[in-house]
Amino acid sequence: MDVVYVLDILGTFAFAVSGALVASDKKFDLFGVIIIAFVTAVGGGMLRDVLINAHPINWIADLNYLYVIFTAVVFTFLFKSKIAFLSRTMFLFDTIGISVFTLLGLQKGLSFNLHPIIALIMGMISAVFGGVLRDVLTNKVPLIFEKEIYASACLAGGIIYLLLFKFSILPEKFIFIIAALVVITIRAISVKYHLKLPRIKDDLFGKLK
Amino acid sequence: MDVVYVLDILGTFAFAVSGALVASDKKFDLFGVIIIAFVTAVGGGMLRDVLINAHPINWIADLNYLYVIFTAVVFTFLFKSKIAFLSRTMFLFDTIGISVFTLLGLQKGLSFNLHPIIALIMGMISAVFGGVLRDVLTNKVPLIFEKEIYASACLAGGIIYLLLFKFSILPEKFIFIIAALVVITIRAISVKYHLKLPRIKDDLFGKLK
Amino acid sequence: MDVVYVLDILGTFAFAVSGALVASDKKFDLFGVIIIAFVTAVGGGMLRDVLINAHPINWIADLNYLYVIFTAVVFTFLFKSKIAFLSRTMFLFDTIGISVFTLLGLQKGLSFNLHPIIALIMGMISAVFGGVLRDVLTNKVPLIFEKEIYASACLAGGIIYLLLFKFSILPEKFIFIIAALVVITIRAISVKYHLKLPRIKDDLFGKLK
Repeated sequence: MDVVYVLDILGTFAFAVSGALVASDKKFDLFGVIIIAFVTAVGGGMLRDVLINAHPINWIADLNYLYVIFTAVVFTFLFKSKIAFLSRTMFLFDTIGISVFTLLGLQKGLSFNLHPIIALIMGMISAVFGGVLRDVLTNKVPLIFEKEIYASACLAGGIIYLLLFKFSILPEKFIFIIAALVVITIRAISVKYHLKLPRIKDDLFGKLK
Repeated sequence: MDVVYVLDILGTFAFAVSGALVASDKKFDLFGVIIIAFVTAVGGGMLRDVLINAHPINWIADLNYLYVIFTAVVFTFLFKSKIAFLSRTMFLFDTIGISVFTLLGLQKGLSFNLHPIIALIMGMISAVFGGVLRDVLTNKVPLIFEKEIYASACLAGGIIYLLLFKFSILPEKFIFIIAALVVITIRAISVKYHLKLPRIKDDLFGKLK
Repeated sequence: MDVVYVLDILGTFAFAVSGALVASDKKFDLFGVIIIAFVTAVGGGMLRDVLINAHPINWIADLNYLYVIFTAVVFTFLFKSKIAFLSRTMFLFDTIGISVFTLLGLQKGLSFNLHPIIALIMGMISAVFGGVLRDVLTNKVPLIFEKEIYASACLAGGIIYLLLFKFSILPEKFIFIIAALVVITIRAISVKYHLKLPRIKDDLFGKLK
């Protein structure tokens, strides 16, 4: 089986667990937990496919996503109190997830002959929109808009991919791995050192006062 | 006219009234009420059609949905204080609605040659997503995730439909009616006896302590 | 360059600024601000295109939208404290935006051979849904449902367009301008005199008591 596919599945699993945890904290019933896990895990790719008219969309084309999500919900049900102790593992899976989702989304965009900027945006939608949907459906302000460097890590990895793809002679698999490591490294460093993007608190002139 | 079509219209009417009631409780203006009624009534089928690439989508293909929704808003405007007394009737219409929406969505999925599991999910999206959209747009945690057995009733009816469709020699109309009665019965019983799905409060080990 | 295109760009700019302002008030980071500006500016047209199956959708077909949105975010970043003083200019741009978005959406619907009522709804979705998405993603009750006559102005302009298009011999450009002026005038008057649509507080019988 393809390595990238395995990583995609690991990421899907991590995203589904994160959705299940948020939903169970909100005291949703089992059905609600499954829906939120589902939306978190495949929501980004689903939106991407609807926007670029790539039918059948991700989870309709490949039933394995459903099975992985269902497994993740059962896993959360069984081991919820233990998952806190697994937080490093889950963080690793989640970070692998966003890196793989970004690059697979970008590749899909390119394969549909979209402009590289649009393909890059499709990569980021794939990676971050599942979490946005999770937060909208649980009536929270989407974390992504406030949290540590997350989407920016995806953006950086995507740009590296595009540059190497265009200007290097490296094989595509190799470029994929380098770009994925860029995403993972940036995110790990930003979490470790609590790096954040600037906000628009004041304008430039305000700062000069 | 087809009986199923009449039931579909009744369900649409009930969904639109439920949307109009929530929106008017939120003090939305007339326009907001119309939008919420609209989204509640056709949102599930609309999402289904977008996801399976079934164009033209439900309310674009059949203008009657719009007329029914508009009638439902006028009805709510005229009789709001009386609708409380009609709660049994509205509950009946609403329950008919989810049963018919589920089975029509499932049938549409099958007619698009989707895997039965995907078709089943499409049925459930048709039935429950309108209410989810209603709650998201009125800034509430979607009821469906917390409430009584609702989506589960749809799921059970959908599974019955699939099983009878595959393994029985009953005519399709008959299977439709049996499956719809399953949905209606489960929902009625669960509301009457306040049945709920379990939540993931604790994990299995937590319960054993 | 086409005048309507220039107005479309002005409207996109105004919508993006309004999104960026809301997001920065919510203390979103730079990335969150860009996403909200983006969704506010192109969300309506994006939903319209997905619903009527018009691929490639608006911002994928024309990269200028992205550049305008990015410029609007930089503009907001630089001049946030000054924008309050520009509120009349921004209101003008925003109102031009909804009028142009409504009529372009309506025209696109007609060009897809949709029923005039559906085309009218597509025009309104183009104009108002970006703001709805902005509010949903920032976890607020959508303004459109409570605010001054806004969607109604779009509706009136759209109806004027359809009537003149069907029953007059005026050239299409001219009809466009008349209808746009109707939207702008109604909105300006309603804001000036604080006009609002009625709510469903009570029903007719309640009022008679």
